[in-house]
Amino acid sequence: MNVGIAYYPEHHGREQWAVDYRKLVDAGITSIRIAEFAWSSLEPQDGQYDWKWLDDAIDLAAESGIGVVLCTPTACPPIWLAEKHPEILPVHKDGRTVGFGARQHRSYFSDQYVKYSLRIVDLMAQRYGSHPNVVAWQLDNEFGGETKYDYGACAKQAFHAYLAEKYGTIEALNDSWGTAFWSQHYHSFGQIPLPGPVSSDVMMWHHPSLELEFARFSSDGMVQFARMQARALRPYIGGRPITTNAFMFSWGDNVNWAEMFAELDVAGIDIYSSKPYEIAFYCDASRGVLAKPFWIMEFGASSPELEAKLSLVQGRGCESFFLFKMKPFPWGQEQSRGGPELLTITGEPGPNYEAVQQYIKQYGADTELSVASGAAPARIGLYYHFDSSWCYQLSVGDRLNYTDYTVNTVYKTLYEAHTGLIDIFYSAGQIGQHELIAVSLHTIYDPQLEQRLIAYVHAGGKLIVTADLFRKDDRNVYLTEIPRLFRELLDWHENNFVTDGIPERRAVYLTHKSGQGQTWLLARDASQEEWLEVIETALEA
Amino acid sequence: MNVGIAYYPEHHGREQWAVDYRKLVDAGITSIRIAEFAWSSLEPQDGQYDWKWLDDAIDLAAESGIGVVLCTPTACPPIWLAEKHPEILPVHKDGRTVGFGARQHRSYFSDQYVKYSLRIVDLMAQRYGSHPNVVAWQLDNEFGGETKYDYGACAKQAFHAYLAEKYGTIEALNDSWGTAFWSQHYHSFGQIPLPGPVSSDVMMWHHPSLELEFARFSSDGMVQFARMQARALRPYIGGRPITTNAFMFSWGDNVNWAEMFAELDVAGIDIYSSKPYEIAFYCDASRGVLAKPFWIMEFGASSPELEAKLSLVQGRGCESFFLFKMKPFPWGQEQSRGGPELLTITGEPGPNYEAVQQYIKQYGADTELSVASGAAPARIGLYYHFDSSWCYQLSVGDRLNYTDYTVNTVYKTLYEAHTGLIDIFYSAGQIGQHELIAVSLHTIYDPQLEQRLIAYVHAGGKLIVTADLFRKDDRNVYLTEIPRLFRELLDWHENNFVTDGIPERRAVYLTHKSGQGQTWLLARDASQEEWLEVIETALEA
Amino acid sequence: MNVGIAYYPEHHGREQWAVDYRKLVDAGITSIRIAEFAWSSLEPQDGQYDWKWLDDAIDLAAESGIGVVLCTPTACPPIWLAEKHPEILPVHKDGRTVGFGARQHRSYFSDQYVKYSLRIVDLMAQRYGSHPNVVAWQLDNEFGGETKYDYGACAKQAFHAYLAEKYGTIEALNDSWGTAFWSQHYHSFGQIPLPGPVSSDVMMWHHPSLELEFARFSSDGMVQFARMQARALRPYIGGRPITTNAFMFSWGDNVNWAEMFAELDVAGIDIYSSKPYEIAFYCDASRGVLAKPFWIMEFGASSPELEAKLSLVQGRGCESFFLFKMKPFPWGQEQSRGGPELLTITGEPGPNYEAVQQYIKQYGADTELSVASGAAPARIGLYYHFDSSWCYQLSVGDRLNYTDYTVNTVYKTLYEAHTGLIDIFYSAGQIGQHELIAVSLHTIYDPQLEQRLIAYVHAGGKLIVTADLFRKDDRNVYLTEIPRLFRELLDWHENNFVTDGIPERRAVYLTHKSGQGQTWLLARDASQEEWLEVIETALEA
Repeated sequence: MNVGIAYYPEHHGREQWAVDYRKLVDAGITSIRIAEFAWSSLEPQDGQYDWKWLDDAIDLAAESGIGVVLCTPTACPPIWLAEKHPEILPVHKDGRTVGFGARQHRSYFSDQYVKYSLRIVDLMAQRYGSHPNVVAWQLDNEFGGETKYDYGACAKQAFHAYLAEKYGTIEALNDSWGTAFWSQHYHSFGQIPLPGPVSSDVMMWHHPSLELEFARFSSDGMVQFARMQARALRPYIGGRPITTNAFMFSWGDNVNWAEMFAELDVAGIDIYSSKPYEIAFYCDASRGVLAKPFWIMEFGASSPELEAKLSLVQGRGCESFFLFKMKPFPWGQEQSRGGPELLTITGEPGPNYEAVQQYIKQYGADTELSVASGAAPARIGLYYHFDSSWCYQLSVGDRLNYTDYTVNTVYKTLYEAHTGLIDIFYSAGQIGQHELIAVSLHTIYDPQLEQRLIAYVHAGGKLIVTADLFRKDDRNVYLTEIPRLFRELLDWHENNFVTDGIPERRAVYLTHKSGQGQTWLLARDASQEEWLEVIETALEA
Repeated sequence: MNVGIAYYPEHHGREQWAVDYRKLVDAGITSIRIAEFAWSSLEPQDGQYDWKWLDDAIDLAAESGIGVVLCTPTACPPIWLAEKHPEILPVHKDGRTVGFGARQHRSYFSDQYVKYSLRIVDLMAQRYGSHPNVVAWQLDNEFGGETKYDYGACAKQAFHAYLAEKYGTIEALNDSWGTAFWSQHYHSFGQIPLPGPVSSDVMMWHHPSLELEFARFSSDGMVQFARMQARALRPYIGGRPITTNAFMFSWGDNVNWAEMFAELDVAGIDIYSSKPYEIAFYCDASRGVLAKPFWIMEFGASSPELEAKLSLVQGRGCESFFLFKMKPFPWGQEQSRGGPELLTITGEPGPNYEAVQQYIKQYGADTELSVASGAAPARIGLYYHFDSSWCYQLSVGDRLNYTDYTVNTVYKTLYEAHTGLIDIFYSAGQIGQHELIAVSLHTIYDPQLEQRLIAYVHAGGKLIVTADLFRKDDRNVYLTEIPRLFRELLDWHENNFVTDGIPERRAVYLTHKSGQGQTWLLARDASQEEWLEVIETALEA
Repeated sequence: MNVGIAYYPEHHGREQWAVDYRKLVDAGITSIRIAEFAWSSLEPQDGQYDWKWLDDAIDLAAESGIGVVLCTPTACPPIWLAEKHPEILPVHKDGRTVGFGARQHRSYFSDQYVKYSLRIVDLMAQRYGSHPNVVAWQLDNEFGGETKYDYGACAKQAFHAYLAEKYGTIEALNDSWGTAFWSQHYHSFGQIPLPGPVSSDVMMWHHPSLELEFARFSSDGMVQFARMQARALRPYIGGRPITTNAFMFSWGDNVNWAEMFAELDVAGIDIYSSKPYEIAFYCDASRGVLAKPFWIMEFGASSPELEAKLSLVQGRGCESFFLFKMKPFPWGQEQSRGGPELLTITGEPGPNYEAVQQYIKQYGADTELSVASGAAPARIGLYYHFDSSWCYQLSVGDRLNYTDYTVNTVYKTLYEAHTGLIDIFYSAGQIGQHELIAVSLHTIYDPQLEQRLIAYVHAGGKLIVTADLFRKDDRNVYLTEIPRLFRELLDWHENNFVTDGIPERRAVYLTHKSGQGQTWLLARDASQEEWLEVIETALEA
């Protein structure tokens, strides 16, 4: 596993770079991730560029034997751009424009923002695309971090176009959403509001179908923006991999990362956690996105028990691992207590310096540890569904924390119940030869997945689902008829949904063998203990 | 007691109506409450009407033996109206306009909103007023629910007119409010701000006299709007009763329901509660409004122990009872978990279906149960004062929850201390031959009530009041002289108010016999136990 | 100690004044503080004045033997001014203009507000400056109370000028703030935003250097405004003292009171507290500001155990003491429960009336009690640093409550550990012959203070500091080299800061004797017990 670190040459004088690079090399670190917020250092004024410092920083790194992952700096547009085209600034749900002075002050739906972003990306690609010491590219930084949703005019117009494209006619939208409810009929797409908070004296909220479409649209805006950047890079970088650093799911559960990485080359993720099962989840989740080894783009350099964590992630498929960061920031929003990172604020080795050094020396090149070199395939699979997570996240009458339950109940139980990897799926097509599959809180109906699950069980698979399976259609409207899976896999022939037919709570509502396999229908609030019992039964069966 | 249910024909295809009506009739339900949010289905575009579906729904109901309570749909103006006349939208206290996309997005003070509302009401009245199957009318839906206060331009102008009408001259307002405090003198009514939140770094707020007048004005706006609708209906409906569905007090303690129903024919209320004493309170409170049997317009169809609750409300004067609702909404803001109402989401009988069926069969026509047919008159009375509740609700230095105390301490104790009805009064004139009257937290001075209470006690009545009785005048300004009631009923001759004269807390500050009766002055935070002791003493005396 | 009281002649008819004055004189009270919110009574319309009532109130007071502290009424501009020049209204951090209808609705940075304020101050000075019964002046009321920060256009322009004046060039600002971080480079001072809340989906905030400068600027705006008023008064008042009433630190820790009082004649403070050590802190803090006896401008008239508190403050240097207030307000925002002040709402003596009367009779003229007449000089000193308090208050990654720790841990321990006065310093120059000095949470580096502390210890002083001493420069940027004090006083020769060198928490990280003195470096979260042990050791050493 390659070990690298985040470095900010633009924060220091050149004389410092050699000092810093030497300390990295001493630690065994041979790659740096740079330039992710450096737009104003690269383009101090509109169309005026200063490449010299970056040229030098990359070249000096090369001389020191340090490879460079180069980041596009688009998460922080400079003041001159915000001043010249204020419409690049997004609008928060509170109605206030997100002004200059922090980060992520950009609307993915602003033509000007996109134009200027692609211009700097294109110039960086031309200049550094074939540089022998630039080994990979990172797009932007933590899409969907601080700015997840945009309620501004550009976004509104784009949302109307998105709906028009998806629904075709306004009647189709009215019908499928059920806008007869509370006289919400629309006559044209241009009338549809963005679902910001509704000011009211007793809590009020927007139509759930509108909310879900807006969540999808918001994720899609980032995906499309990333793809435009990737397309701008491709002609110049000759096959070097492109990734981005995903914000951890539980923090930023608003981006469909499966879609985000679908046209990139490697999944990258930032992990800030001290819980082994949680770190494992994010590893498995990242590996699942493209079904291959992944990169960790940020991991806390001052994290306790770092060595054990390095082992853990390497064993679950991490191919490249970047610490965050070399030294504490003395200034800016991310100064905290001035406490040590890999080095202290005065440049001395911090508490983890030696551990990193030892790990790289001993295991850095050890491919045995790596899942990439042929660990046993996972026996267990877990389905993760972004649309269902949003459906629950947006709900007022039935809000649940999908991610929390998935990670801290379902995955944790699976992780503790056996020792191997767990495959995480994002589409029906990923379901393979697994012995056991869990599909929890998957409340949005998906006919392809239904068909695949039926086939999987009939062919001998063991399937655990929760009782809210397939309760709503993909417009976020409750189904009024029961999907056939319930008959085929669970032998349920009533005309009511299972929990209406069996109103008292049960840990396991139904279990049934069909074909060569078996299915369990659990309460959607089944506890870890209840999951464990069913998992053990299933794995022993 | 008649049992009906809310139904939404505009949500379903016609073919479904017959199916649904049959299930209602099977349950014994013979009335439906319809059209309360159907404006956009009735008037899809400005001045274009679609009456056909409502004609048919009413006619088919008639054929099925189901009577119709028809609702005016004014709580949800359609998008075309909001687009054409944006000034119909109210402004929330946070300064944001309440946009289209939920409900109650209407300013009672907008001429356009009133004009369009009365137009649709008038047309409905003409078309359905004499329809033999339309048995009653409901105005709008839950006045004072989501939109209690409006801080928009229309409201501001109306508030200035309200104050000018009430005070005559700005000097009168300045003098009675005490605007010398903090240099708050006004020169004209047009300068007076609406009392929205004051943005400040240490909590700051508006003048309490301004706040109380704005509360009164806001309630009055709804009352006047309802009266305009009622007046529009009268010429066409030939004596059929008009009601509206009051939002339960503890939820919406911002409408003076006594004034609201004063020009309507029957008091209607929505009750969502599982506590018998609380349900009883709302029944007694509703019966008190017009001093006659009342209707429950909404009651949860999935409420546990529904049969006992049906008995309870019938025994306290409920004449007509509407369940909410026939089926769960698959779509829209009120979809919750898809759980059953009277029917499940797939149209099967829900858990309460049989209970409702049995109740109607056994007791539906039983007039013995009903208070209307001559139950024993109440021995006990309780005075409810909206102005005092607002005074406490708005106070910063002395905030109390009037409604909570009245219901959960005073009424609950009275309810548990004896078995009969309790009369709830809203004006001095309603005080009659009761053995015991409680007047709690009535902090706003009312000379008429003072005179009536003195006469009541002198004639033998027992009166319990709290120590904050008559501390402020009706401009929300503290009195600086003690009202005569304290001398006459409590033999208090000091020049201080009682609690200034007796600074330590006592459960009973004073009790005194005068004339044939007796008065008790309790701490305004007297507990249930303390109330109980005094009530028992009084009822035994 | 002189005892006075707040009185509001403009709230009452003239016939009431004589009644009230008589009750004051009976209590022994011989001064009143008046007119602090009376602008609209003095200038009911732009340029139209009504001095008659104030003339009469002052003259009648003179006849009654009551001296007057006259207040400038600038905290409450009248409606006509707000209407004529809306730009006088400040803008809150939530983006909303602070409207008319409460108090402190004024921007210190509005030329119009300043102009009108100075006009009324000037006219009052001319009219009453040499009045024999006007004994002192109070400026405005509680600067930095409700309106601490102003985000409006006038403030923004003034802030840009402040920065330009301080930094000279934008490059100097960029360099010292480190705006390379997140591409925050500015090209001109006019681009710099005011650091209001950043709307974002994951918490985001402004640059800490910007935040600290805005805090300084905001305090400075009040200081400059107060100085302008003082300069307007001086020519007319012939040496009568000028003060203002400081909002207690823990409430309003946003004004640098040392700077505020630097050009005034006596420190004045409003104290609302029932804890003796807290009252003592504010006394010592007020005495320290100008290193001489101070005035208490407000103290709760209904405060329990008032007599003991009068003794306490008199013994710590209070020269003049004003109760707040004579009678409860029946109206306006500060009506509370109508409970008694010195008198009840009906004008009867309240519970503290007799205590005040007795105290004045027995101790009013007792100069022995007063620190002014030569109490023992303080053995102990405590440094209070506004800039460090703001640095911690504004921090996101390392927020601490400086004031709370200083008062409730450090001062409280010092107060309980010995019986004398404690001197509170605000600048290096105030450090004198004290036996022991505590400098806690002083995180902003100050080379002058460093030099003074070294000299103090070398000369025999005992010094207790916390481990965060001098971690940041005065731009709120972490130092990357260790200041020499650590070598000189603590014999610390590592290249790391102490807590990076000794990562485990210790109550006392280091102690060292140097020259004739000794220094202790404590954990910055040292508990009261830990402080006590070190203080006792130090005082015994």
